[in-house]
Order: sequence, then structure tokens, then C-alpha cells
Amino acid sequence: MLEELKQQVWQANMNLQKHGLVVFTWGNASGIDREKGLIVIKPSGVEYDTMQPEDMVVLDLAGNQVEGDLRPSSDTPTHIVLYRNFSAIGGVVHTHSTCATAWAQAGKSIPAFGTTHADYFYGEIPCTRNLSREEIQGEYEEETGKVIVEKFGQKNPLHVPGILVANHGPFSWGKDAQDAVYHAVVLEELAKMAFYTCSTNSEVKVMDQLLLDKHFLRKHGKNAYYGQNKL
Amino acid sequence: MLEELKQQVWQANMNLQKHGLVVFTWGNASGIDREKGLIVIKPSGVEYDTMQPEDMVVLDLAGNQVEGDLRPSSDTPTHIVLYRNFSAIGGVVHTHSTCATAWAQAGKSIPAFGTTHADYFYGEIPCTRNLSREEIQGEYEEETGKVIVEKFGQKNPLHVPGILVANHGPFSWGKDAQDAVYHAVVLEELAKMAFYTCSTNSEVKVMDQLLLDKHFLRKHGKNAYYGQNKL
Amino acid sequence: MLEELKQQVWQANMNLQKHGLVVFTWGNASGIDREKGLIVIKPSGVEYDTMQPEDMVVLDLAGNQVEGDLRPSSDTPTHIVLYRNFSAIGGVVHTHSTCATAWAQAGKSIPAFGTTHADYFYGEIPCTRNLSREEIQGEYEEETGKVIVEKFGQKNPLHVPGILVANHGPFSWGKDAQDAVYHAVVLEELAKMAFYTCSTNSEVKVMDQLLLDKHFLRKHGKNAYYGQNKL
Amino acid sequence: MLEELKQQVWQANMNLQKHGLVVFTWGNASGIDREKGLIVIKPSGVEYDTMQPEDMVVLDLAGNQVEGDLRPSSDTPTHIVLYRNFSAIGGVVHTHSTCATAWAQAGKSIPAFGTTHADYFYGEIPCTRNLSREEIQGEYEEETGKVIVEKFGQKNPLHVPGILVANHGPFSWGKDAQDAVYHAVVLEELAKMAFYTCSTNSEVKVMDQLLLDKHFLRKHGKNAYYGQNKL
Repeated sequence: MLEELKQQVWQANMNLQKHGLVVFTWGNASGIDREKGLIVIKPSGVEYDTMQPEDMVVLDLAGNQVEGDLRPSSDTPTHIVLYRNFSAIGGVVHTHSTCATAWAQAGKSIPAFGTTHADYFYGEIPCTRNLSREEIQGEYEEETGKVIVEKFGQKNPLHVPGILVANHGPFSWGKDAQDAVYHAVVLEELAKMAFYTCSTNSEVKVMDQLLLDKHFLRKHGKNAYYGQNKL
Repeated sequence: MLEELKQQVWQANMNLQKHGLVVFTWGNASGIDREKGLIVIKPSGVEYDTMQPEDMVVLDLAGNQVEGDLRPSSDTPTHIVLYRNFSAIGGVVHTHSTCATAWAQAGKSIPAFGTTHADYFYGEIPCTRNLSREEIQGEYEEETGKVIVEKFGQKNPLHVPGILVANHGPFSWGKDAQDAVYHAVVLEELAKMAFYTCSTNSEVKVMDQLLLDKHFLRKHGKNAYYGQNKL
Repeated sequence: MLEELKQQVWQANMNLQKHGLVVFTWGNASGIDREKGLIVIKPSGVEYDTMQPEDMVVLDLAGNQVEGDLRPSSDTPTHIVLYRNFSAIGGVVHTHSTCATAWAQAGKSIPAFGTTHADYFYGEIPCTRNLSREEIQGEYEEETGKVIVEKFGQKNPLHVPGILVANHGPFSWGKDAQDAVYHAVVLEELAKMAFYTCSTNSEVKVMDQLLLDKHFLRKHGKNAYYGQNKL
Repeated sequence: MLEELKQQVWQANMNLQKHGLVVFTWGNASGIDREKGLIVIKPSGVEYDTMQPEDMVVLDLAGNQVEGDLRPSSDTPTHIVLYRNFSAIGGVVHTHSTCATAWAQAGKSIPAFGTTHADYFYGEIPCTRNLSREEIQGEYEEETGKVIVEKFGQKNPLHVPGILVANHGPFSWGKDAQDAVYHAVVLEELAKMAFYTCSTNSEVKVMDQLLLDKHFLRKHGKNAYYGQNKL
């Protein structure tokens, strides 16, 4: 069942490790089959070195486990909230990558300081509010998803493909699981660059909106002219 | 004698190098056989590239060398104090990993800033007081262990699996030698994240106690639901 | 056509990745055949892992594509402006390397703090002004080149082989494509060292002009005595 | 001639690269045969990938080239001054390693903040004064050596096996070329730890002299008990 998607999601999880985004098992990637309404996600706490495509877990969007002997990632309810609210996305990634997590722990959104940022994120990378005591004591992982959705508002998820959860770390997403991994790598690099930028100039200002528009739109949307897709 | 434990302790020492926690010979891991009351530890100043399982040294808890041609790690008396005082632990690791050592040199405990921390350490990672002149001039390595125990107080060692010794560096521990290595890796990563966090927001506050409870308890204790152990 | 130059430019692009200067496809190198008035450049958005020498694109200095099935790097007009204005250069490189980009985002030139800098850059590494709204909305990539030339002034491009574009990142150049890569590596290392230098001493001053002269001139010019070229 | 020493010095130079201390050709190691009064040093500006033991250059302590077709490192006169003034040393290394160079550029000695430092350096790692205009315009590389010796004073070179030259970078030394490489690695790690330490606590104080004594002396001198040498 969903063998191709399992293979993709497994590969996406392995790529998290390859890109240096995870220590031990601290990360997870998932993908969705929108037609069937089923998601495939990494099992909880399994080591990357031994994980196989057939270990991936299948669930429906109500959170019922449809296939797999292993328990799914404990963050699964967060992934599900994102899939239910962001209909354009096909993959979700969560990591504790060093610099992105530091910004999340600092409780600060990452400002758009340059064109590297503007090439992928159309504006700042938002940081959520803290969860309330009720949210922490309730369905915590699901509430984490809801707080992301609340902070995200009406933005296009494919135009701002990631967010920071305060005191926790980054979530990213994309057209599919691999695209979500791609954005997790970008987010960590932007967090690192932003750290060095602020350290080098404590009074640095965000970039000009027009330059942000220019760079985002030369890679995205109908007039894009970056890459080979339109030649 | 204790061939399996020697193999485990040797592997744990090799893993310190694999995880990038040691420069040259700056680190040591040990394990204990509680039934026999014997510990196995790395020899002093031997290079990782040539070290073999049979080079591991066996001592009793009074510090008497029971087996092995090589002198044990000079930090052995510190390990012994930890084994004698923390009956739940089965392995100890000491490193001079970069960021954890920097916090120790700065003389500051590492505050709990986020869920990565809360997943493993139930509260701040304490930093000891400086040793007194008498302690330095006396049985220095043993006194180092005593200062750790003094600072640690009545906490559960498996709930706070590591500490910083002021002006020195981190010690960590766990169920066995490999678990102590695992916590040494976590401690270094937390120290690095905390550095970036404080640099990004000089007025950052520690995380909500309730969120700390939530994350620690979802991985530890009788209601844990992270990983595969309970499925 | 230009097979040798294509091979060189391909190798230069691959070396960007080898030296850790690029994430994904975020960089490009080009070279020029001055006699023929033709430049060879990396195609846009192609992954390094699959890119071959024959994928390189050939253009004339008016920007007309002379050979190649793929679209050239979107930064090609910037490269062309540099070739047209800096007649001594034979290669150009653009990256988003972490620390150099951070200085560009901070909007600050990198001061000459020591002999590592002076060995390659005869004075500070300049940072351009921001582009105007008209420049961003006009021929953006070409205007980027013009802003570089404006800031650079009458300096010898082989004496200051790189620059930072504000809110964007570094461009470097050299005698050929490989030399431009060499200077991209140097620029990133100087940016990193300058970050640590300013963090360590917030009131640090630039180096003595005489020491700058001494180091630059012992490696460059008619009295150079570094390396093997004159023995 | 001196084939064994050439092999050692070549290996020491290769180890600089292996330990990540050099970018391109930015470093050099040498060794001395005290009986013959001859030193062996890396040739100037030769790439590590192609350098062979037989490329090493032999000179006497007056700086006359005794053997070798290649020109010696341009820093050779500095090495010679060190060999002439520090009779206990058998090897010298110069690098531009990132953090040590940053402290040199900042013009600050590296304070002894902890036991990692005390295990190898018996006190701060000094930073020289700037060279005068006359020194820069005179026999620059020789004057660099003299400024090191002036700053170093009457300390035992084997107790403080390295120094920072202001606006330049680190020099280290040891019993032989490999020992000098070892101290270059230590110096860079101490510089990195000290950066993180000062960033974490801007009011950090140097360590207790008694703790410094304890750690240095447990590894060095007649009562040393670290390592296997005395068992």
C-alpha cells in the first residue's frame, strides 16, 4: 500500500540526516496522498541507520493508523493539522536543527535580511506564541499544529514554507516530502546567516520590500525566470 | 574478565570520537558491573586509533586496579565517586566538547530554553562551584566528584544525566556507557543551541515549567509515549 | 566549441561545492575567452550532482546565447557587466556563502584586520549601496553589475578580487574561473575571521597600512617573493 | 640527507591539513636536527595534494639553503629566530587557523579559562605587540621572530608552546614537528572555546592559579601522572 510514497518519505527522512539537520532521531518527515486522504510518516524513535521504507507508518487524516507495526512519530498530530489546513502542501518536516531551534528558543521570527531568504520565503519566517497551559495539558501535539495555523493566518503556505514554534523548533513543508526537506535545509541556513548578520550589525534593518518581491517572483509564479522549467 | 563490558566501554569511547566530542585523547567513558562491583574504564592518554577492547582497565569501587597493564584514566576517581553516589547509573562519560566546556569555563548553568533540552534534562544543566584550594591540593579528582555530588543534591541522576564542572568541562552519565555517550552528545548540542539562543535574544527567559514537564514526561516515566517501547 | 573553457568552468563550479561554498544550486562560476569575446557559464538551477561540462552555456558579451540547450544562470547579466568593465579578469564567481552573505546582509564592508586579508585583498572588501527602486524594477541583474562597478571605482580588480552586494552576497573574480573560485574561498574565510575578530574585540582597528602593503606586495607585483614562480 | 627528518616534516605539514588548520597553502611546519644545526621546512606556496617528502627544503641556521630545488616557506626567517632562541624546541608550526587568527587580529592574548588550557599552556597564550614601521620595512619575517622572542621573555617554551602575532596569526612549537602540530591544534581549540566562553559570560575571570598549576603539573614535569609514561 502506497509503496512509492513510503519510498519517498523514507528517502526524505534519510536526507534529513544527510544534510546534517538531525542528531540521533530528532526529526521526522511525512508525505500525503491527497486522493486517498492518507499520510505516510516516520515511526517514532527509530534510528536512521536501520530504518527501512517498509517501517513507514500509514494513517488517515483522522489520525487512525491504517498500516504499519510501529507507532508513528509522536509529532504526527501536528503534521495532520498542517495537512488539514494547508491544502496545497504534500509534505511536512520537523527538525531540531541548531540555528533554527535557537531562534525558536529566543522566541523571535527570522527577518528577511537578504535575497537568499527572499528566494524561498516571501517575508519573515514567523515564530508562534507560546502554548497556553491548557494547550500544553490538552492534546499537546495537535494544539502545536493549531498554534502554527493561528500564527500563519491567510498566507500562502507555498510562499512561506516554514515556521518556528516558540521554545520548540522549526516545521517546514512543500509540494512533497522532499520539497519539505529542501525548505528545512533553507530554513536552517537562513537562521544561521541571520545570526551572523545580527551579530555583525546589531542595528541591521530588514530588506527593501521591492527587492524581496523581485527575488521571490523571479523564482516563483507565472513570470519566474530562474531554473530550466520555462526554456 | 568482563569481556562484554570491556567491549561496550571500548565502543563507547570510540563513539565519543565518532560524534566529534573529543580532540586527541580528551575524553573518557566507563561502565560498571553492579553485581561484581567492578568498573571498566579507558586507559590514560592512549590514542583512539590504536586503542583495543583489551586495553580497558578494570578497577573496584575502592579504586584498586584489578586487571589491565595500562594506567587507568586520570579522571578515574571522579567516575568512582559518581558510581558510589548515583546508584542508578551504569556508565559515565567525561569530555572537553567545545560548547559545553565554554559554559563550564563561563561558570554558568545551561538554562532549559526549549523542548530539545526538556526531552532529556528535567531542568537546567547545573554548573558546580569552583573547587577550594584545599580540594585542588588534596585528592583533586576525587574532590571533583564530590563537588558534582554536592551541587547535584537530591535530583534523580537519570532525570538530569549530566553536569558542568566549573573551569573544567562536562560529565554525563546514563544506564550504561553508551547511554552516557548519548547524553554527552545531547549536552554539547544543548550548549551550542543555548549559545545561539542567548546571542539572538539577550533577554531570553527559561521555558515554561509545564512545557518542560510535558516533554520530559512524554519520553520518560510510566506514561511515556515516545519511541517504540510501549506499542 | 570552447571545449577546454567549458571543462574549466564546469570544474570551477564543481569546486564551489567541494569547498562547501554552496547549498543546493546557490552559486555560479563563469569564464571568458577574451579573443573570441565569448563567455561560458553554468546553466540556471541545475544540480551539481548531475551537471556535465557539455551543459555549460556559451554567450557573447551582448548577452546573446551562442550555444547550449539550457538557460544560463539568471545572474549572467551581472557577470557580463563585470567582464565588460574589468578587462583584466578571466573568471567570475557568485555564491551565497554563509559569512560573506551575512556581511552583505549587514551592509558592511569587511575591514582589513590582518595579514590573511592582506595576502589577497589590497584593502577592505567593499560593500555596495542598496539598489534603487528603479534599478530593482529595471534590468535588475545588469543593474547589480553596474552598482558593483560604481562602488569599485578605479581600483585594480586583480588587487581587490571580490565585493559584497548589499542584501545579497559576494561576487569574486580572478585571472580565470578557478582563480575566481579561489578568491570566493578566501572571501568566505576572511568574512568568518572578521566576525570572530569583531566579536572578540568590539573596538578592534584596521591593520597598519604599511603591514597591508608589505603582505600584499610580497605575494603580488614585480618584487613578489612568495611561492615558486621566481626561483 | 636528513631523509627521516624530511619524512617527519612532510607528515607534519600533511597533518595540518588533516586537522583542518589550513586553507589552501596557508601554513607551514619545520623540524630541526640540532646536532647538524640544520632545519627542514615546507617549500613556499606548494599545494598539499602534490607535495612530497623530497620537496622539503634544508637550510642551516644562518638561513643558507643547503638542499632542495624549491624556495623555502617565506616564513623561514621567523622559524630560524625561534630555533636560535628557544633551544629546547625541535619543531615549529605556523597557521592561519580561524579562531586563533581572530584573537591575533583582535590583538588580545587568550586568557587561561579552564583545565583544557591548563593541560598544555602554563598561563595565557600571549599576543605580541604590533611590529614598528622600521620592522615591517626591514627584514620583516626575521623581525616577526624577534617580536615573538621579545614578548615571550624568560618563559619555558615547552611550558607555553605557542603565541599569537598581532594582526597575523599563531605560531606554535614543540619537541619536534609533530608536537608543534599538536600544539597548533590545541591552540585553535582553545581560541574557539575562549570565544564561546567570553560570548557566554562577558565578565568571565581567568581560572585560579592553583587549578592551573594542578592541571599543568599533572601532565608535565617530574610528578606527572597523566598518560602511560610512568606506569
